[in-house]
Amino acid sequence: MANTVEDRSLDIEILGPPKIDSPLLGYPNRERETDESLAWDAFTDDGQRILMDATLESLSVFKNGGQMPDSFEQAGARRKIYFDPSKVRAGILTAGGLCPGLNDVIRSLVMTLYYRYGVQNILGVKYGYQGLIPAFGHSLVQLTPMVVSEIHQFGGTVLGSSRGNQSIEELVDSLERLNMNILFCIGGDGTLRGAHAICQEIKARGLKLSIVGIPKTIDNDISMVSRSFGFETAVAVATEVIRSAHTEALGAPWGVGLVKLMGRDSGFIAATAALARGDANFVLIPEVDFDVQGPGALLQRLQDRLSSRGHAVIVVAEGAGQKFFEDEQIVKDASGNTLHKDIGQFLADRIRRHFRDIGHELNLKYIDPSYIIRSAPANSSDQVFCSFLGQKAAHAAMAGKTNLLIGQWNDHFVHVPIAKAIASRKKIDPSGELWNSVLERTGQPALKAIASPR
Amino acid sequence: MANTVEDRSLDIEILGPPKIDSPLLGYPNRERETDESLAWDAFTDDGQRILMDATLESLSVFKNGGQMPDSFEQAGARRKIYFDPSKVRAGILTAGGLCPGLNDVIRSLVMTLYYRYGVQNILGVKYGYQGLIPAFGHSLVQLTPMVVSEIHQFGGTVLGSSRGNQSIEELVDSLERLNMNILFCIGGDGTLRGAHAICQEIKARGLKLSIVGIPKTIDNDISMVSRSFGFETAVAVATEVIRSAHTEALGAPWGVGLVKLMGRDSGFIAATAALARGDANFVLIPEVDFDVQGPGALLQRLQDRLSSRGHAVIVVAEGAGQKFFEDEQIVKDASGNTLHKDIGQFLADRIRRHFRDIGHELNLKYIDPSYIIRSAPANSSDQVFCSFLGQKAAHAAMAGKTNLLIGQWNDHFVHVPIAKAIASRKKIDPSGELWNSVLERTGQPALKAIASPR
Amino acid sequence: MANTVEDRSLDIEILGPPKIDSPLLGYPNRERETDESLAWDAFTDDGQRILMDATLESLSVFKNGGQMPDSFEQAGARRKIYFDPSKVRAGILTAGGLCPGLNDVIRSLVMTLYYRYGVQNILGVKYGYQGLIPAFGHSLVQLTPMVVSEIHQFGGTVLGSSRGNQSIEELVDSLERLNMNILFCIGGDGTLRGAHAICQEIKARGLKLSIVGIPKTIDNDISMVSRSFGFETAVAVATEVIRSAHTEALGAPWGVGLVKLMGRDSGFIAATAALARGDANFVLIPEVDFDVQGPGALLQRLQDRLSSRGHAVIVVAEGAGQKFFEDEQIVKDASGNTLHKDIGQFLADRIRRHFRDIGHELNLKYIDPSYIIRSAPANSSDQVFCSFLGQKAAHAAMAGKTNLLIGQWNDHFVHVPIAKAIASRKKIDPSGELWNSVLERTGQPALKAIASPR
Amino acid sequence: MANTVEDRSLDIEILGPPKIDSPLLGYPNRERETDESLAWDAFTDDGQRILMDATLESLSVFKNGGQMPDSFEQAGARRKIYFDPSKVRAGILTAGGLCPGLNDVIRSLVMTLYYRYGVQNILGVKYGYQGLIPAFGHSLVQLTPMVVSEIHQFGGTVLGSSRGNQSIEELVDSLERLNMNILFCIGGDGTLRGAHAICQEIKARGLKLSIVGIPKTIDNDISMVSRSFGFETAVAVATEVIRSAHTEALGAPWGVGLVKLMGRDSGFIAATAALARGDANFVLIPEVDFDVQGPGALLQRLQDRLSSRGHAVIVVAEGAGQKFFEDEQIVKDASGNTLHKDIGQFLADRIRRHFRDIGHELNLKYIDPSYIIRSAPANSSDQVFCSFLGQKAAHAAMAGKTNLLIGQWNDHFVHVPIAKAIASRKKIDPSGELWNSVLERTGQPALKAIASPR
Repeated sequence: MANTVEDRSLDIEILGPPKIDSPLLGYPNRERETDESLAWDAFTDDGQRILMDATLESLSVFKNGGQMPDSFEQAGARRKIYFDPSKVRAGILTAGGLCPGLNDVIRSLVMTLYYRYGVQNILGVKYGYQGLIPAFGHSLVQLTPMVVSEIHQFGGTVLGSSRGNQSIEELVDSLERLNMNILFCIGGDGTLRGAHAICQEIKARGLKLSIVGIPKTIDNDISMVSRSFGFETAVAVATEVIRSAHTEALGAPWGVGLVKLMGRDSGFIAATAALARGDANFVLIPEVDFDVQGPGALLQRLQDRLSSRGHAVIVVAEGAGQKFFEDEQIVKDASGNTLHKDIGQFLADRIRRHFRDIGHELNLKYIDPSYIIRSAPANSSDQVFCSFLGQKAAHAAMAGKTNLLIGQWNDHFVHVPIAKAIASRKKIDPSGELWNSVLERTGQPALKAIASPR
Repeated sequence: MANTVEDRSLDIEILGPPKIDSPLLGYPNRERETDESLAWDAFTDDGQRILMDATLESLSVFKNGGQMPDSFEQAGARRKIYFDPSKVRAGILTAGGLCPGLNDVIRSLVMTLYYRYGVQNILGVKYGYQGLIPAFGHSLVQLTPMVVSEIHQFGGTVLGSSRGNQSIEELVDSLERLNMNILFCIGGDGTLRGAHAICQEIKARGLKLSIVGIPKTIDNDISMVSRSFGFETAVAVATEVIRSAHTEALGAPWGVGLVKLMGRDSGFIAATAALARGDANFVLIPEVDFDVQGPGALLQRLQDRLSSRGHAVIVVAEGAGQKFFEDEQIVKDASGNTLHKDIGQFLADRIRRHFRDIGHELNLKYIDPSYIIRSAPANSSDQVFCSFLGQKAAHAAMAGKTNLLIGQWNDHFVHVPIAKAIASRKKIDPSGELWNSVLERTGQPALKAIASPR
Repeated sequence: MANTVEDRSLDIEILGPPKIDSPLLGYPNRERETDESLAWDAFTDDGQRILMDATLESLSVFKNGGQMPDSFEQAGARRKIYFDPSKVRAGILTAGGLCPGLNDVIRSLVMTLYYRYGVQNILGVKYGYQGLIPAFGHSLVQLTPMVVSEIHQFGGTVLGSSRGNQSIEELVDSLERLNMNILFCIGGDGTLRGAHAICQEIKARGLKLSIVGIPKTIDNDISMVSRSFGFETAVAVATEVIRSAHTEALGAPWGVGLVKLMGRDSGFIAATAALARGDANFVLIPEVDFDVQGPGALLQRLQDRLSSRGHAVIVVAEGAGQKFFEDEQIVKDASGNTLHKDIGQFLADRIRRHFRDIGHELNLKYIDPSYIIRSAPANSSDQVFCSFLGQKAAHAAMAGKTNLLIGQWNDHFVHVPIAKAIASRKKIDPSGELWNSVLERTGQPALKAIASPR
Repeated sequence: MANTVEDRSLDIEILGPPKIDSPLLGYPNRERETDESLAWDAFTDDGQRILMDATLESLSVFKNGGQMPDSFEQAGARRKIYFDPSKVRAGILTAGGLCPGLNDVIRSLVMTLYYRYGVQNILGVKYGYQGLIPAFGHSLVQLTPMVVSEIHQFGGTVLGSSRGNQSIEELVDSLERLNMNILFCIGGDGTLRGAHAICQEIKARGLKLSIVGIPKTIDNDISMVSRSFGFETAVAVATEVIRSAHTEALGAPWGVGLVKLMGRDSGFIAATAALARGDANFVLIPEVDFDVQGPGALLQRLQDRLSSRGHAVIVVAEGAGQKFFEDEQIVKDASGNTLHKDIGQFLADRIRRHFRDIGHELNLKYIDPSYIIRSAPANSSDQVFCSFLGQKAAHAAMAGKTNLLIGQWNDHFVHVPIAKAIASRKKIDPSGELWNSVLERTGQPALKAIASPR
């Protein structure tokens, strides 16, 4: 993973050298302190960096006289900032599907900009990138500490969200017209791609405009980000739903609870939720192939399980088993995400048909909790995490850094170049610790048909 | 931090060279697989190590021709194990105060030993170290997957717990008499000190007995352990209690909600819970000194806050402000922990007295939720975490490793020598990221009396 | 409502005159008390009756020299009982769909029979009436206080359930063969019809066998039962789901949250949950007709709402709008319940099509939480309620009463003849208090097309 | 209970004959309907009354030619109203300790007044009766649907509350000066006494001012009110706390969990919460006397329990065992409530001392969750209930009724004269159904010392 080109690309773009002293403003609870030793006046230097790879092994190249290993710039408040807080006009937008914690991030951004830096001109952009395109007619919202004071009680986003791309040129036109110098983009893969394109257009136009991303992926599958906000809440709700499926499975002869969870390209929610309580017997994820029909495949294993235990719980990530739809044409949603055929419904049909064929009673209950998970308010763990993300993002933007996102890596918050994060998706390693642990917990065998095509 | 002596001390003791092939047993859902490529049959090598310090800076010594930086052995299943599963007699005990997740760790240990290794002789030791001392008359409990199948629904520990030390000699006598070759000790600082002493006695007697610790500290203050189980659940419950205090504060003229949280020597729960929702206005922790009386001190700042906003929330860690009790004699509990005077009650009294003195109505509500937090069942995040801890601990013990505990560090699970972990306690750095963030969130000034002794 | 025939029919059947003194047994916490004044040794007389109609108006007939108004026998412990506890063999079964509180009722029955009466022979019948039919091969489960001690932690039923009718003759054959003298049937309309038929067969055979029903209807629509267990829990979960729909509706331009809730023949869950938080804008129930197309009908009203407010929440009971499927053939499930076409999916399709036709963006999120609601553990209110139901049912059976169910009416627990309860279903009165309140809360207009056929 | 005087006193005072047609206003979702058959345009007549006593027995006097039995006027919208909505100035205040549901009642009042009647002048009075006394300097708050739209998410009261009496004359002066014609008083015993005194002063002055009370008592002990709002939520939270105590009790040798719950004069919360999960072994309430010392008394029974089972849970209502403080002087709080000595602390001390004396290890954990319970947001059951209460109260006031409160009785909402409700407190009948059920569930013996003074 470590080579010269990649290493360099982990450097963070800045709009110019920061020259202004970071302010120390009066907080709600105090007037300006004369006490210069005040603890929170602590700063992070640009030179502080976090190793990308924390294994001892990664140092071998370096040890043998090679170059320094890859590392991320550490996030945090800088002693010198680039923007004059009194002249900052900052925008915040949320895009893509709902995810627990959006309002917490918005709140933390506003609180930090306002109280830490004295920025008073903070605008909420409605419905993602749509809100910057005049044709949609969405108005901007003035955001103050008062406005955001209780929004973290609620799931969803007070700014609204939308999917779909907008013209990069029109977006930058709008930013210029609105006189914005900072834009925070809270969104997933598509949103970050948009942010990256905006940055390139900004650079081409020679504007002094900082774009900072806060990665939102309920699936936790953004590269170079070990944890994304909302994921723990999603797992918590998913865990309860698996419990429901387990209860239903126990409640009837040959009961099967089938739960479809989010996870288009990766099975992190399914795998992690399956670990939490251990009620799942079969976990199906996009990263691991499986068959339905044939000796050793799902239907036979399920039947074995029902024969011996009388009930079973199956958890399937929405992106699993896409090979079963291969022949069919690819459909994409407004954001360009491939729309998957419904693997949950597919499995429910196949399972029901199988037991009808063998003439045995079956009680299958299919649960698709998608929106119940997405719309949940953040739990306290995500609230704390979002609080940090908003603070770090505000610090980065005020320091004039741009085209980056805030990530967590090896127990530290870091700056990740957007281009690096969107280059690929994080996936579960089928021979790694997480999947291994799921297999240990569920006792699930390989679900491949033995010497038998599906 | 990096010198030869310390480096060496991070090596893990082993009882002898592991020679037995790790078994691949039939899981509840399957017969033995013929498919040798089965994913979960993945192993970690002893050579895989995780850097203790993941900052780039830490490599400077090394870069200049110095020695290798400190690192931890990575946890995980080993290809060769030391104990023959059919001859293992494993014990599990829990000691110290309750903490969310105890039952989850017990369950994961049993499930992994039983299904992954085929160990059938697993004994629950009742009430911590007491359960090994015949004089107490507690009987052992046979633990099977059936017995532990639903215990994670409940807070507390099915094995019971106790505080206080027992004779190391008697304990090792018991282990010998019981013919145990593995003992898992789930407990805090005191328990781990006991485990370390047991290891030394075992070595002195030349026994082949592995002792593996799983660190339990609801305060999250064990060294070299970035996260301890139960902490996130504790923060979640504490967050709700702070919300209660906020509601009460808003509900009456000059309302003050005062919450005392756990944290004898460190304020992690108080600081983290204060970040979650941002309802706290003053956070008092052991690591940061504060005054009560005098200009700029707590009472005056509180009065200022009430004058301007009409309500306030104070969160205090139980170990904060111990200087106010300095003259009084030191009292210790059965485990040797210093018993602190009740800072919560102390502050409640002082605040009430102050406002009585100035003749202004005050409505102070004092909440001490200690047992409500300690007894909570683990939330899903802790359930997943405990599941991993139990698996890793079982792997370590079966590989013949001893005198270690399972920690999490830089996003990996690692083996930490017990001696290193108990050498000091983790504390909040008053100039670090966490405390800084609390100060930003609360807007709390330094609470030191200016030019005025208390 | 009051006439001679009906009055008489509210009398409860008894197997014979109770002659045995109700025992006062040793509880877990005590030996037999010598103190005869012990409070819980309180009894209800058969003569204590609760008026069916508590309005003053209902007394008018009576006032004018007419007969006594209708009344229910009050439930409770009787001083004299019919069965000798040492000879009782009691069975418990649960049938139909899951409902919060099943395990609480089972637990309360067992605790009361065991500790209050000393009955030690209590058998759990697996999977409803199936468990009594030898062909299914389900074995009986011995139920003791130890077995049921923690089952109330879990949703569902530890006994399992099933739908569908069994041969009444075979059932009574089994009861005879098993030598049962008491059977508790916890189930809905179909189960109670079965219980009534069993009672008639028992009477025909001259057996001394008491059948006591505990009405289970998550929809709360059993006649002469003002509250059924599980209903409050169901409303609580449904309320959260409506909140999810609201959050999703707010999160996108022209966002619509559509929630389908239980309620085949009545809309109690939909209407009550809509009242709890007031997030719903349109509530559709079986009792109130509505149109989809045309001026003043749902689609137009929805469009009006979206134009003015930008988002909307629709709650539909599964039995609403069945007229849209009228032409299609009637399908019934195993218990004989009419299977309804999916009104939720129907509305989702129609709404999406409408906005596609008018060319406006629409973001509809459809949530069907059925199993998540059914499988929830009882909340504390239902736990208390189930505790009472189990106690009252045990008292009734021990007193030799039969062919009755335990209901709550006018703040008292009463005995209701099964025949009366199954004669009709409870429904929401469209001009009554509940629906009126929903209309006030939602501001929802009549959704009938004006002068325009659908 | 039925005699001429009492009967008459159940009549509701009215300010004068209502003459204005109840309006049918445009709701948020609709313009004015032409459809006159609109369902929610349903009304209740003054003649509709609900029997106070729903037992058949209560009719015996009547039957023998006596007078009509006591009954309450049924609550609900009246066809004719007294106040012209365009001229109404309504006030709302909350007083006394916090209780779940306060914000829900406020919200329902505002929504009903505004949307159902078109009242636009609704004022929130801050901090209870204080807010009407100029000397306190609290300003009034304009309440609109927008202001109250999300307040039901939060516990406590957005209006603030206070304890203590104010001068009735000054209060009525303020009402006159503010030109209010309706005042809603949400509060407990003390608040309702105040409201009653205000009514008498209003009558003396000949004012046209309606005072409607909504009874708030978390203890559920107001006479003629079968259920008070917040009670079910309080029981739900208390149930969880008892679970904590149970977990702690199980977690240590001879573990005792001791929980103090609200209940100054009645033990409804303690008794009901003890029923919910059945974890409590001893329940102590004000209505039932008990001894601590001596054969058969608490300490001995507790010791017996610990000897046989190893752990115990005790739930004590705050007003229980006041005889132990009899000699000490009576202290009252600002509202005139007798302040009780802390029975929880008293029992903790006595239990600890007892086991120290007998030389046996004891692990007692004392939990006092008071504010955590009081500050909880209403659960959905209470939300629905509060929604009804607010609607009924608004209807009563608009109809010109006064000096009444809204109660629930025999499954209906009714008007109760304030004077009747405050005449006495509701208490648990030691020989009735609730206490009986607690005794059956806990197996608790009489805790009276046998032939031995305490």
